[in-house]
Amino acid sequence: MSKSGFPLLGIMGGGQLGRMMALAALRMGFKVRFLSPHSSGPMQGLGEQMVGPWTDKDVLQDFVEGCSAITVESEWAPAEEVKAILPEGVALWPSPATLQLIRHKGIQNTTLQKAGLPLPAFCCCASLDEVHNAVEAFGFPVMFKRFEGSYDGYGNATVRFPEEIQQAWDDLAAEDGLLVEAWAPFVRELSVLVCRRADGAHVEYPVVYTEQKDHRCHAVEAPAPSLFPDVEAEARRVALAAVEAVGGVGIMGVELFEMKDGTVLVNELAPRPHNTGHYTIEACHTSQFENHVRAVLGLSLGNPNLRVPAAVMINILGHRSGEAAPDGLDDALAVEGAAIHLYNKPQVRPKRKMGHVTITGDDVKTVRARAEHAASLIQL
Amino acid sequence: MSKSGFPLLGIMGGGQLGRMMALAALRMGFKVRFLSPHSSGPMQGLGEQMVGPWTDKDVLQDFVEGCSAITVESEWAPAEEVKAILPEGVALWPSPATLQLIRHKGIQNTTLQKAGLPLPAFCCCASLDEVHNAVEAFGFPVMFKRFEGSYDGYGNATVRFPEEIQQAWDDLAAEDGLLVEAWAPFVRELSVLVCRRADGAHVEYPVVYTEQKDHRCHAVEAPAPSLFPDVEAEARRVALAAVEAVGGVGIMGVELFEMKDGTVLVNELAPRPHNTGHYTIEACHTSQFENHVRAVLGLSLGNPNLRVPAAVMINILGHRSGEAAPDGLDDALAVEGAAIHLYNKPQVRPKRKMGHVTITGDDVKTVRARAEHAASLIQL
Repeated sequence: MSKSGFPLLGIMGGGQLGRMMALAALRMGFKVRFLSPHSSGPMQGLGEQMVGPWTDKDVLQDFVEGCSAITVESEWAPAEEVKAILPEGVALWPSPATLQLIRHKGIQNTTLQKAGLPLPAFCCCASLDEVHNAVEAFGFPVMFKRFEGSYDGYGNATVRFPEEIQQAWDDLAAEDGLLVEAWAPFVRELSVLVCRRADGAHVEYPVVYTEQKDHRCHAVEAPAPSLFPDVEAEARRVALAAVEAVGGVGIMGVELFEMKDGTVLVNELAPRPHNTGHYTIEACHTSQFENHVRAVLGLSLGNPNLRVPAAVMINILGHRSGEAAPDGLDDALAVEGAAIHLYNKPQVRPKRKMGHVTITGDDVKTVRARAEHAASLIQL
Repeated sequence: MSKSGFPLLGIMGGGQLGRMMALAALRMGFKVRFLSPHSSGPMQGLGEQMVGPWTDKDVLQDFVEGCSAITVESEWAPAEEVKAILPEGVALWPSPATLQLIRHKGIQNTTLQKAGLPLPAFCCCASLDEVHNAVEAFGFPVMFKRFEGSYDGYGNATVRFPEEIQQAWDDLAAEDGLLVEAWAPFVRELSVLVCRRADGAHVEYPVVYTEQKDHRCHAVEAPAPSLFPDVEAEARRVALAAVEAVGGVGIMGVELFEMKDGTVLVNELAPRPHNTGHYTIEACHTSQFENHVRAVLGLSLGNPNLRVPAAVMINILGHRSGEAAPDGLDDALAVEGAAIHLYNKPQVRPKRKMGHVTITGDDVKTVRARAEHAASLIQL
């Protein structure tokens, strides 16, 4: 952006990540505009909303008109299409090239491996024969993963016995096959957010512990408890190298496995603000959303460090289907220090991410119990 | 509000206080609607904006339609008019009664005095004769204050010599005269935010030090450095009692003088979120804006305590007249830990409040210098 003038950020997508980007941008006096193929709750009430077929050239041209920079809140947004019609001087971050390297898990893993990064043994299998060879090489259990479109446990399968192979292949293989990964006997899962600018300037957030329930992020503890300094250093090194390997600009979430021997392996990359970074809104000097906005606009990056000793984030998921209504909200607000975020999704579905709670405090253990309690009280 | 359903908060006013209330409300999934007699920058981009003559019954009826509760971001909003057309079950806080006690400084002081609160000696003078008597009783210098409409140094005068009395009277007296206050030889100015619900539940924020430049809030240091525990306790006691004396609901700012002998005097009350509480957004578990929203909606109040050891807020004022453009913003963002808030005011005027910077850290002294530096870099 130019040094003067209030920037207008174009956000492709209508989910909670765009919503939290917008809240950060608006606080700094910036303007935001959303484009989404369907009207959505999270984009309501913030900035300007555009709804339309977002691969349509005319729609995209209206969308980018006057924008200082464009970003996507999902790796599945049509970045190539908007890139094709971008006016000169308007940036799009992350780039379509980065998104292409990340969307396809086979390409993502191959890219990271070529860059020398540690990750579980894997094989891009184009046929059932190749799958059988890979399984023989890795030994059971193995992970089968869809090359594209898997998230939150969808599109993945743990295969433990030979007789499960055919079914998993039928379920998950695309025309170019699927990804087979050796099971990584990890101690726990960690995550590091990296924010990187187009000129290579970057900041790394603290290494956090992320706990999954049913293949979904349930809790994040910051900083990761009892983390050895050398593991922390390695996690940061690997995270930054992974982001550099795909040319990431903006915030990227790097999910890692912490192994028994103190090494870390890359699990996967997300080219956008990440669920494991929501705690940064309250806990860090500059939140992941603010730094994403800054990076995409080419502005100075902010301090990513904790401003508090500890923080815990717990997701609020849906448990039923229907119209959302915040039952128990007042009880949750009464929990000491609870910062409650609800995403304004009008419809609830089982396991849908509806909001989250963050609590900051002196140690992870104390605030974890309170955050769990607050999140459990809200039924949407 | 009802225990289920996402509340809609109606905000009368279009300034930065309403903007920051809206940002807090939207984060929790609540909806907001603004009503202002003129379109304003700060209300843009957040929730629903209504512009129209806000004493008009039809305009007000459209505004309150569907709202869970109404609040005002200024003591000058037409609270009586909206009260008159409020549907049953919709609350308006603060109440018109509270606002009436506060708008008129003579009534405000008299109310506080009757409640036994300490304040500088004062006299509501209806005539020049009464002024001369008051000045004789108090001794020079004395403060002359307009009964209504004074803020940020406007509508006040320090009178040091007999020959200045007539001019100050001519400038400031209304039909019912003006307020004459004895000069309080204070050590420094303190502020305490109180958040109170209609049922009397309340929380008090930390006692902070506020520094004025040209009769305007320039800096806030939280907590107030080197504050004796008994002064702190007295400041909190007085602040709460003052809010209770006027029946305040929502956030109220209580400005205090700290005297040499460790006593405190009430300077004045603000029946709304206050400039001396902006630091709470980053520094406290629950910001003044979030607690205001909670209180007005009758929800549980949040923890008002600091989540960090120290924080400093510096105002960003205008220095010229014209269209606002954020020059130096990138340099300011580069200052370590700077959380920059700009209010989206399209026009800048000398001394107009355009934004603020907050920095949190280990001690007030370190972050003060950084916050001053960041704020000084931004020219709007």
